[in-house]
Amino acid sequence: MSGHRQPLPPAAIEALQQASTATITTQLLKRGFRNTFLAGLTATRPDMRMIGYAFTLRYVPMREDLDLVDIDNTTSAQRIAVESVGPDDVLVIDARGDVGAATLGNILAERMLRRGAAGIVTDGAMRDTSAFREIDLPTYVRATHQTQSTARHHPADLNVPIGCAGVLVMPGDVVVGDADGVVVIPRAVAEEVAFAARDQELKEQFVLEKIRAGSSIIGVYPPDAETLAEYEGRKGRD
Amino acid sequence: MSGHRQPLPPAAIEALQQASTATITTQLLKRGFRNTFLAGLTATRPDMRMIGYAFTLRYVPMREDLDLVDIDNTTSAQRIAVESVGPDDVLVIDARGDVGAATLGNILAERMLRRGAAGIVTDGAMRDTSAFREIDLPTYVRATHQTQSTARHHPADLNVPIGCAGVLVMPGDVVVGDADGVVVIPRAVAEEVAFAARDQELKEQFVLEKIRAGSSIIGVYPPDAETLAEYEGRKGRD
Amino acid sequence: MSGHRQPLPPAAIEALQQASTATITTQLLKRGFRNTFLAGLTATRPDMRMIGYAFTLRYVPMREDLDLVDIDNTTSAQRIAVESVGPDDVLVIDARGDVGAATLGNILAERMLRRGAAGIVTDGAMRDTSAFREIDLPTYVRATHQTQSTARHHPADLNVPIGCAGVLVMPGDVVVGDADGVVVIPRAVAEEVAFAARDQELKEQFVLEKIRAGSSIIGVYPPDAETLAEYEGRKGRD
Amino acid sequence: MSGHRQPLPPAAIEALQQASTATITTQLLKRGFRNTFLAGLTATRPDMRMIGYAFTLRYVPMREDLDLVDIDNTTSAQRIAVESVGPDDVLVIDARGDVGAATLGNILAERMLRRGAAGIVTDGAMRDTSAFREIDLPTYVRATHQTQSTARHHPADLNVPIGCAGVLVMPGDVVVGDADGVVVIPRAVAEEVAFAARDQELKEQFVLEKIRAGSSIIGVYPPDAETLAEYEGRKGRD
Amino acid sequence: MSGHRQPLPPAAIEALQQASTATITTQLLKRGFRNTFLAGLTATRPDMRMIGYAFTLRYVPMREDLDLVDIDNTTSAQRIAVESVGPDDVLVIDARGDVGAATLGNILAERMLRRGAAGIVTDGAMRDTSAFREIDLPTYVRATHQTQSTARHHPADLNVPIGCAGVLVMPGDVVVGDADGVVVIPRAVAEEVAFAARDQELKEQFVLEKIRAGSSIIGVYPPDAETLAEYEGRKGRD
Amino acid sequence: MSGHRQPLPPAAIEALQQASTATITTQLLKRGFRNTFLAGLTATRPDMRMIGYAFTLRYVPMREDLDLVDIDNTTSAQRIAVESVGPDDVLVIDARGDVGAATLGNILAERMLRRGAAGIVTDGAMRDTSAFREIDLPTYVRATHQTQSTARHHPADLNVPIGCAGVLVMPGDVVVGDADGVVVIPRAVAEEVAFAARDQELKEQFVLEKIRAGSSIIGVYPPDAETLAEYEGRKGRD
Repeated sequence: MSGHRQPLPPAAIEALQQASTATITTQLLKRGFRNTFLAGLTATRPDMRMIGYAFTLRYVPMREDLDLVDIDNTTSAQRIAVESVGPDDVLVIDARGDVGAATLGNILAERMLRRGAAGIVTDGAMRDTSAFREIDLPTYVRATHQTQSTARHHPADLNVPIGCAGVLVMPGDVVVGDADGVVVIPRAVAEEVAFAARDQELKEQFVLEKIRAGSSIIGVYPPDAETLAEYEGRKGRD
Repeated sequence: MSGHRQPLPPAAIEALQQASTATITTQLLKRGFRNTFLAGLTATRPDMRMIGYAFTLRYVPMREDLDLVDIDNTTSAQRIAVESVGPDDVLVIDARGDVGAATLGNILAERMLRRGAAGIVTDGAMRDTSAFREIDLPTYVRATHQTQSTARHHPADLNVPIGCAGVLVMPGDVVVGDADGVVVIPRAVAEEVAFAARDQELKEQFVLEKIRAGSSIIGVYPPDAETLAEYEGRKGRD
Repeated sequence: MSGHRQPLPPAAIEALQQASTATITTQLLKRGFRNTFLAGLTATRPDMRMIGYAFTLRYVPMREDLDLVDIDNTTSAQRIAVESVGPDDVLVIDARGDVGAATLGNILAERMLRRGAAGIVTDGAMRDTSAFREIDLPTYVRATHQTQSTARHHPADLNVPIGCAGVLVMPGDVVVGDADGVVVIPRAVAEEVAFAARDQELKEQFVLEKIRAGSSIIGVYPPDAETLAEYEGRKGRD
Repeated sequence: MSGHRQPLPPAAIEALQQASTATITTQLLKRGFRNTFLAGLTATRPDMRMIGYAFTLRYVPMREDLDLVDIDNTTSAQRIAVESVGPDDVLVIDARGDVGAATLGNILAERMLRRGAAGIVTDGAMRDTSAFREIDLPTYVRATHQTQSTARHHPADLNVPIGCAGVLVMPGDVVVGDADGVVVIPRAVAEEVAFAARDQELKEQFVLEKIRAGSSIIGVYPPDAETLAEYEGRKGRD
Repeated sequence: MSGHRQPLPPAAIEALQQASTATITTQLLKRGFRNTFLAGLTATRPDMRMIGYAFTLRYVPMREDLDLVDIDNTTSAQRIAVESVGPDDVLVIDARGDVGAATLGNILAERMLRRGAAGIVTDGAMRDTSAFREIDLPTYVRATHQTQSTARHHPADLNVPIGCAGVLVMPGDVVVGDADGVVVIPRAVAEEVAFAARDQELKEQFVLEKIRAGSSIIGVYPPDAETLAEYEGRKGRD
Repeated sequence: MSGHRQPLPPAAIEALQQASTATITTQLLKRGFRNTFLAGLTATRPDMRMIGYAFTLRYVPMREDLDLVDIDNTTSAQRIAVESVGPDDVLVIDARGDVGAATLGNILAERMLRRGAAGIVTDGAMRDTSAFREIDLPTYVRATHQTQSTARHHPADLNVPIGCAGVLVMPGDVVVGDADGVVVIPRAVAEEVAFAARDQELKEQFVLEKIRAGSSIIGVYPPDAETLAEYEGRKGRD
């Protein structure tokens, strides 16, 4: 587990479980954070939801004297990461968006699953992506490349601030994923964002029902005072 | 409904229902139109077929004083579009190919479905793409981005000529989509293209059967006089 | 069938059937070949495995006087290729990565299937990709484009060395595909790579079982002497 | 001249003449505008400074029936633009960043120069760029392409909001160019930005002199109270 | 010298010397050739004009067993090309647009200059581009990369049809370069294009003088009957 | 000065002053290092030569709560870098190749010049690039962007391994620049590479003279035993 982590209260986790990544980005945008969605990644397990804390791993370009050698589990930052992640950690890999080789394969993912990891996110490629579709560990990838990571990447360090898919990720940030992708919530605002997102989600569910019943968007989306009063009344009855 | 629209006769619509987007591009190419397929888009509903008339919506880059404000359904070109489309309209969005934020979300799509829209096409991203897979409105997107449109886009105007995925789209053009993508047919040639495409489709079905039965392509694809005669004879018997 | 081909012994083919494309790239990397995986391609038939010999087809940019004419099966290199491939040939197309038009369509693919071809690989687009999902011929494509190939491509020649998806492909090279993509094995090393890949695959299966049973990667992946001894012992018992 | 234009007072123009495009972007950033610099353009006349008002011209993709015809000066939006620009107008062309053909050539530029235009900006290509280096009309281009515009572009309309090089340009916006590029100032803030930028420029000139004389940046850049007092004192003496 | 070459009559060469590459593309466009300009290349010698016949050299991706070896002048297609080009040959290299290593360096260029070559064109990178600025051999490059060609490229063959910068180049095609870039003229139309381009050039020179003297473009560009008559009259007097 | 630095002996520095960046990449390639040239950068001072030791600065994507604030010289890694570089340091910035804002401006460059820095290298953009052309500090940039760095970048840390323009740069690596670009020499091989590159440079100068005098490349480039003997004899006489 990353020493950077400050766990969220269970109620906030529960709120995040009811909010889509879309809704979370809206709450972040309201608070001035415009760039929080990791664009261009695909979920290997769109049926699973991911919530955890960022454990970062940074790759730099490979160099032949460092990387065309046998992998040593005691010195490779990649391998140290795999044997360091703990429950609720999401391994987030900065691969510079380079998809010319893999960043990880399914064996290491299976190990992280057994260590309790909550997921994997990379802006590079994965190896054996088809195998990842069978592993109960939500993983988000930009591409598949079957060549092992050392052909392009040198693992440099752990738990430093990184960029992943164009977004700043700090160790300990809250990372949420669903079928549509991954959003990173700065830890300092994660709690308030969680509750606000859940509230918005419920409101939008109400709006959606009205639209499905034939309402125009006028006065409904965004909701005016009357619609909000109706929503509050309904909520009271539930 | 767009005032630009000149509806096709029902027989032409019926013909288009039997022609693949591939076949339609071939008939357009024969008439000198080389660039009619909207490349790089994915169908959210590959099981559905889309036929309609282009209702265009043009986005330009956002600017903070215009777009970091509450959305007003009476002034936003996006919202006016949603409440203007009518039966058989296909909303075609020029998002400059920018996938750094969404161009629309599922609530607005649900509203357009209820207004009778035939589909949505964007060369930008959609929000909640996984939700679109559950909506009976064929939608074609370049990517998924969960951040709302105002973070990147300002809706500028409606029903002007636009570029979408590199293709000119005029309001009222005939827009056809299938599992493989979207083709735009200039209105002036849409009727003749519809019938010619259906004819080609039937001929290619005949060719395909011969190939499956073991024929070489020589004399068959493209068909020579003998094959054509055989086809005509067969057609007579059907 | 390509005159370049030197068939592999059946035992090597059988070994390749048990090795993933990931494992094959690792064996090639061990022999100094860093760039053997064709990145960015999608399998139309992820449920099928492809093993064959490269039959290459090279496209150059179209020119109006050459390509806006009726296709002649006796002079078009594309059509000659289709009627030349034989059992176990994989047609590999160098389309310069240009996905602005198709490189082939489903009718030609059906013909190649009947001629015994083992698969198709292109770094360009395919037409009617959805139809390819129904054909029992593993096909790997970069994109879908419905416009016919002559709008962008002129087929230049057959069975010359080409680049495909950034990788050198020599006529007669061994081409292997699975759900995760395509690897090209230089013919001169194909036999030893086949056996070495199969051996590695079995060893990694053993490692994966240990990881799934709760082992750390330390001493196991990569395996140390003890783990290897355990593996050899197990193998003996099988 | 564009009817959209509200001229700046001469003092504001004079202030802009003393401010670099870098300084102007900083003043815009202070006011919340993050995206005002037109990235990726090259000045044909880095020795000239451009200040004027945006006169916008919007291109969409060409279509054969519209554009492979003789150019008509009375209907082509491009030609109407050329004969409409007046003193202090900067023609800003939205070419969708497509550099596959020119957007304008030197003959039209010579005509605009004689009509008093202040400059040309395009996010597409120019023809005869080497000739532009001899014309006293500051022009900013993304690339050179010698093929005439109609091979890729259809001129759609004039003086609508456009995107150019990723930035929103409204007709009448203030456009400033120097050797390093082009910045677009929303008209509503142009006057205050002009004066603030000139002030910042003078302050930075003072800072630069101190740095050149051996100062550390500490306390100097950004300037602390003491440095600011020194600057104010110096200014009093000038 | 390439066996493909059919020299142009001296009068056509002379005509080409008076036509810009822009004008030549226009004459090609009039004849239906839309794609003849090699986009994205930079002239190392913008002060020189290049006219010659295409001598093509095709590169494919490198492979370690072929290219990480000593270069052999008797087997390397690159070296054979250098010692084969003759007077008026333009070496045109298809480097797949890959600028990750050089395609040639200055020593080979000096040798080609002494053999009488008319120029070099590559859609890859050059090594020592600054040295090329001192060599009297017009060279057109996409980028500079100092690493030698064998790190990315394997020279495959000579005088086959190639794509270069997206344009089809046949051995023997007429290649013309000026400060703004390179145009390839299919040999079959080169003679008529040469004369037509020279004529257009003279006419546009006349138009430009009128524009510079204050004419509107109306009736002048494109010229109407009156302007053409004036031009013909003037020409008679020259 | 970086604590990582192990200075080269003066004779090695002198040798590097006589070797082009092209020649240095060749010596690195001979030692197995394929990826050492920083592609895509432009020299602001092509008339100057740069030799120094890498002092690395790493940027990650900006976040509003960290970067839309006043810059503090005591906490900003960028500013600490500027006031930390010493004689012979080359500031190498990892900007993730993002050119959407500047990475540094001319005032900070002037300060580094006065601290004795040997140069600046960035794979992002510079501000006021035209001003850099007047500063006696060799600077290598990918682009110009006038918007200040905080609009896109957050300076994260100093003197960690980074990727710059796709190449691994370790703090203390030897960085050499000339008019054609920048090469990074791993410190462990820098000394031997320096001498080997100088030797190769002299040999190639001799080869070039022979080529200019009319020699074929056969036996000369690469030189055979006879040519080498001639070179050795000549060297003895110098």
